[in-house]
Amino acid sequence: MRELEERIKRDGIVKAGNVLKVDAFLNHQCDVALFDRMGAEWAREFDGLGVNKIMTIEASGIGIACVAARHFGDVPVVFAKKAQSVNLDGEQYCSTIYSFTKQREYPVIVGKRFLGSGDRILIIDDFLANGCALEGLIDLCGQAGAEVVGIGIAIEKAHQGGGDRLRAKGYRVESLARIAGMDDGSGEIEFL
Amino acid sequence: MRELEERIKRDGIVKAGNVLKVDAFLNHQCDVALFDRMGAEWAREFDGLGVNKIMTIEASGIGIACVAARHFGDVPVVFAKKAQSVNLDGEQYCSTIYSFTKQREYPVIVGKRFLGSGDRILIIDDFLANGCALEGLIDLCGQAGAEVVGIGIAIEKAHQGGGDRLRAKGYRVESLARIAGMDDGSGEIEFL
Repeated sequence: MRELEERIKRDGIVKAGNVLKVDAFLNHQCDVALFDRMGAEWAREFDGLGVNKIMTIEASGIGIACVAARHFGDVPVVFAKKAQSVNLDGEQYCSTIYSFTKQREYPVIVGKRFLGSGDRILIIDDFLANGCALEGLIDLCGQAGAEVVGIGIAIEKAHQGGGDRLRAKGYRVESLARIAGMDDGSGEIEFL
Repeated sequence: MRELEERIKRDGIVKAGNVLKVDAFLNHQCDVALFDRMGAEWAREFDGLGVNKIMTIEASGIGIACVAARHFGDVPVVFAKKAQSVNLDGEQYCSTIYSFTKQREYPVIVGKRFLGSGDRILIIDDFLANGCALEGLIDLCGQAGAEVVGIGIAIEKAHQGGGDRLRAKGYRVESLARIAGMDDGSGEIEFL
């Protein structure tokens, strides 16, 4: 998506450690008109797949997913919660995500009432790097017997390999901007 | 807002300890068509105030704020982040919120680049009970010299007094559903 690539070049900041800051428009301050056009793009790409629910993870994915859902016939959006601790009351599916940024594991949960067999899930998130967060969401869907029919990503850091690993497993991953490499010295960002 | 009250009566669950669970449509699974009508309602109520930015706090407020922003000319949405620790790099405004639910204080931050004097802020959130979270957001705006021109709330637990305390301070608080009392025995919810 040309507009997103240009916005990343204009407002994104490359930091040491392979970090791309896009908090001016994507995950701290939110450009909702851009989110809307991203939603329209995903709706074109995932047309005809019978998506009946969108799933994401708090916090950055929520705004994007909720605005995008309007292009999918206002299907419900369910966001997985990062739990402080696992609540074993049996009312939740639980998985574990390893965060490279924070170098620790954390549990993610979703209420069993909101995910079930028969659900055709589109997962939406702001970033895809190594894919750990997505694998946690896919695991939650698997526990519920829900089918992941597509994965819509705003920015894929393609050089980190998570996207291709998911594609190799058969998942349909559509990323609106795919980064081939970044240089925190020059600030340059190269797209695929 | 009649529709929201009826939805709360239909899908809300009253739990012991004055807890109202609305995770079926508001803050875990999200009904984005409802969010859109809530946004239209706030746009009517806050018409003519020159809102140029919407502020909320992660995680539950984000989806509501992003969908609502479409009714305010696509103004940017900034969400305050619940920080693990205070980052004293000088790039963030920081405040402290006391959570009665969790019985502890936690820091909230917002990037200084995204809030400034001249900003006319509409704060949006899912719940207003004692008002502690809102006071933290108002404090962040005050530090930045931004003016809070309105506060739009989905569900106000009016019997907990936070809304009236804010109104007494001169803030314009518009809550789409105002709860006068709840009974976790009968499950009954009474609206103002």
